[in-house]
Amino acid sequence: MDLPQHVEITEVGTRDGFQAEREFIPTETKIEVIDALQDAGVPRIEYSSFVSPRAVPQLADTLEVLQGVKRGKATLVALIANAKGAERAAEARCDEIVVVLSASESHNIKNVNRGVDESLAGMDAIMAHAARVGIPVHGAIATAFGCPFEGDVPTEQVVRIARHLEAAGFAGVGLGDTTGMATPPLVTRTCRALHDALPDFPVSLHFHNTRGIGLCNVMAGLECGIVRFESSIGGLGGCPFAPGATGNICTEDLVYLLHEMGLETGIDIEALCDVARTVEAVVGKALPGQVMRAGGRLALHDLGAVATARG
Amino acid sequence: MDLPQHVEITEVGTRDGFQAEREFIPTETKIEVIDALQDAGVPRIEYSSFVSPRAVPQLADTLEVLQGVKRGKATLVALIANAKGAERAAEARCDEIVVVLSASESHNIKNVNRGVDESLAGMDAIMAHAARVGIPVHGAIATAFGCPFEGDVPTEQVVRIARHLEAAGFAGVGLGDTTGMATPPLVTRTCRALHDALPDFPVSLHFHNTRGIGLCNVMAGLECGIVRFESSIGGLGGCPFAPGATGNICTEDLVYLLHEMGLETGIDIEALCDVARTVEAVVGKALPGQVMRAGGRLALHDLGAVATARG
Repeated sequence: MDLPQHVEITEVGTRDGFQAEREFIPTETKIEVIDALQDAGVPRIEYSSFVSPRAVPQLADTLEVLQGVKRGKATLVALIANAKGAERAAEARCDEIVVVLSASESHNIKNVNRGVDESLAGMDAIMAHAARVGIPVHGAIATAFGCPFEGDVPTEQVVRIARHLEAAGFAGVGLGDTTGMATPPLVTRTCRALHDALPDFPVSLHFHNTRGIGLCNVMAGLECGIVRFESSIGGLGGCPFAPGATGNICTEDLVYLLHEMGLETGIDIEALCDVARTVEAVVGKALPGQVMRAGGRLALHDLGAVATARG
Repeated sequence: MDLPQHVEITEVGTRDGFQAEREFIPTETKIEVIDALQDAGVPRIEYSSFVSPRAVPQLADTLEVLQGVKRGKATLVALIANAKGAERAAEARCDEIVVVLSASESHNIKNVNRGVDESLAGMDAIMAHAARVGIPVHGAIATAFGCPFEGDVPTEQVVRIARHLEAAGFAGVGLGDTTGMATPPLVTRTCRALHDALPDFPVSLHFHNTRGIGLCNVMAGLECGIVRFESSIGGLGGCPFAPGATGNICTEDLVYLLHEMGLETGIDIEALCDVARTVEAVVGKALPGQVMRAGGRLALHDLGAVATARG
């Protein structure tokens, strides 16, 4: 296995995680969490989104959050779904914009109210807003590893969309495993196809742990040379189609895995676990993250203090 | 990646999982769970243990359970810790015996009340009991990837113990990641060292998901050619040193991963998920298994029935 040396983590918890929370999280709390993530060394944060406040009321304070957080540390990314969002994000001067569209027609209609080709046709207008203020734009292809309505998504469709984005001047593309349908062989096949078609287009992977194999998919991605992964602090978030199932892969568990594999992230995992525990208190429920509970592998125990384990 | 075609799963939930439950599970319920696992096609089940009923009261009914379950389907394995246990297991005519000892001195003392060399010195007496009735004996090396009291465990110590077991006539050895300290590089290093030292001695891997990377360790094991893994239905069990952390890796999530990687197990995953849901009802709490909640990746959803997902 020929692995990269450095991996870039994008934290998506305050966007992909918080948006699933029903009770409004105070703006000040969001700012504290984002700043704590920055202080822990997270290099890139998808901190919120400029989408309709009616569709996602939890993130209606995206401008106030951006104005309240420290700037100049992490790259602060805003998710958008259309040109209106791009305009607002550009005016707000976030560091980068991510445009979401889906690889499958039905999910794109459900998520952003238009077909895939209509989304693609709108990319130039989005780029124009970003270009005016010099902000890089990345794409996020949801349902890249399968659609909860349609099933398998042809790899060619993912490649076709990525090709369009690269031609439109996008800085990179993320493949979203929106409902946890990715598997290691599918990750390998998709990453290879993208690399063959667009060898210089940066790719990031965004896995959900819906079926327990999110970090296995990361390993498959690493083996394909992918060095950008997206994850959520504490494993915050959920799957709208699987009540009780977890959401995004957990940032601190991912960082633990990467560090144990000898890869660098620039992140202080102890500080990251502190943030995860803070976020657990914020949402008022146990999150699926494991390392924040168990500690590192060499967190040793007193021989006298524990009961017999037996095997 | 040159992977094997067939993987043998050993289910350990009714032993390693149930033993952590405080409230006594009725013998009849244990029998039903074990038979349901057999009916789902699980080929090998570490169904219970012959250890002191005072130390592990939950498994005091091991003989009654063995007498109550179907025979001739799965291989029914009993865990033991000493010659007395071997004698009882042999009299009871289980199909195989597993002897547990730890790679680290302090954990072995804590777990089976003697030092490692004293455990090794007792193996001949254990073999004699098993040989009288023709039952194969496997070893289980706990703390093979690290000890919660001592930290790192030298790979040479694991090899030394395995070498002793092979010389004593054992049929194979399992490496137990008792408190979830294994990592992919450590798995690779340990499996390679064992293969170099004892190329014909069958090795199985028993991971806990304490730090969220249990299935990543399975992937590392598969890449080393390991074809035997142990797991627990629903992810039943816990870690005595990490309250709230999960226990063994989850059988149905493991089987899902293996099947998606194109490997055969002979197990009906739908039937397995049914057993996992039954076990959740038995222990009266949510278990960490994901696939039983989310279904397979192609469990599709009705477009009209769900809320907007957004990325």
